[in-house]
Amino acid sequence: MQGIRVGALPLVGVLGGMGPAATADFHRKLVAATPARRDQDHVPLLIHSIPQIPDRAASILDGADSPAPALVCIARSLEAAGAELLVMPCNTAHFWYDELRQAVGVPVLHIADPVIEALVQGGSFSRVGLLGTRATVAAGLYAKRAAQGPARARGIEWLQPSQAEQHEGVDPGIEAVKAGQLGRAEWLLREAAERLVDQGVDAIVLACTEIPLVLQHAAVPVLDATQLLAEATVRWALQPARLATVT
Amino acid sequence: MQGIRVGALPLVGVLGGMGPAATADFHRKLVAATPARRDQDHVPLLIHSIPQIPDRAASILDGADSPAPALVCIARSLEAAGAELLVMPCNTAHFWYDELRQAVGVPVLHIADPVIEALVQGGSFSRVGLLGTRATVAAGLYAKRAAQGPARARGIEWLQPSQAEQHEGVDPGIEAVKAGQLGRAEWLLREAAERLVDQGVDAIVLACTEIPLVLQHAAVPVLDATQLLAEATVRWALQPARLATVT
Repeated sequence: MQGIRVGALPLVGVLGGMGPAATADFHRKLVAATPARRDQDHVPLLIHSIPQIPDRAASILDGADSPAPALVCIARSLEAAGAELLVMPCNTAHFWYDELRQAVGVPVLHIADPVIEALVQGGSFSRVGLLGTRATVAAGLYAKRAAQGPARARGIEWLQPSQAEQHEGVDPGIEAVKAGQLGRAEWLLREAAERLVDQGVDAIVLACTEIPLVLQHAAVPVLDATQLLAEATVRWALQPARLATVT
Repeated sequence: MQGIRVGALPLVGVLGGMGPAATADFHRKLVAATPARRDQDHVPLLIHSIPQIPDRAASILDGADSPAPALVCIARSLEAAGAELLVMPCNTAHFWYDELRQAVGVPVLHIADPVIEALVQGGSFSRVGLLGTRATVAAGLYAKRAAQGPARARGIEWLQPSQAEQHEGVDPGIEAVKAGQLGRAEWLLREAAERLVDQGVDAIVLACTEIPLVLQHAAVPVLDATQLLAEATVRWALQPARLATVT
């Protein structure tokens, strides 16, 4: 931020509001993931939580107004305010990741990267289930990003709920989180996770940042993309050679 | 925010980072306090969480560097980005409230106001205990603000922990929250609350935004300044005649 010295730590810009509760969840997880003894040890953040950004899924699936101009505008304003890294705690919005990266001169951490890294480091995961919006699943967000990664990432088979399960379970579950109907959301998403386990997955990725607000566990290991993005953001901010590690 | 239409809802600017976990707690409480069925119903927020702002208590008590220039700079940058209301989820920083208000052309919601309003509406509260930093208590933040309020607010007697309890209980408890030592913090602050109850208070105000992270209840009604500020912010943002109500 112009005129304010924020010490040795870089300012991190957050493109948020997609949705608002997910952004607050990311905020809390980032603070909790920071090794700090006092306020001044924490990562300085600029969070733009603008829930009026055009609906991402409606744009991808139905050709409604694109959120890209708003996302680019927010990203540039965060950069102009001094942000040295941008993050976006919304999986579906990563459909426009390349446009965002090209619009700014600072790195943008891709939400799928720390998830794929954790799966590769975990070693034994080969059939991975995805719980995300219909748009995230249809866009192949994780598979495409993994295809650019190391051999072990390219070998992951990505499984998704059946079309009926997606329409009647996952999407209404995510909408219920946004509407504050957490009991209903938990029930719908837990059912969807159990159907993925029935398909023989050996891990489940919570690939929509609304989901970990109501679902944290299943019969197989669960990877929370919000938590992993928060941890990756803190690692980036605290390590001196950070500019070399994010492309 | 310039260039982004955020619909009918005003943009709210948050001066945060004092401390970081308290800002995240305010963020969560504000989202949860919003009556919304979908993302677009939520209040757009710009949150500047800058934990490197000079220490507020050290400035008030020991004459260390003032945080006022940084606070004014952040407030002006939030206003320049389009914020129509500013809030600051940190009690101690309200020591510089008048400077902030004069530095910007938009209203700044004072954190003590919704607390005093709740006490007045509650009706039967006359001996109110304050749990806050030594600096907040020494500055008489709540008593001074109540003195500007209606007669019933002026009649409140404000009680505080003994000097020993403040030094050995409350201040180390707040520091322990900032250091992530939540078990120790809860123990220290619960003891301090019990000593206030022993003094015969009929309500306790959590007058430091770190405290509700570990303490929510006592043997008398507890008023959480973070929660009340979040609710007041949402009320302001959602009501059309808002400009008439905040001075």
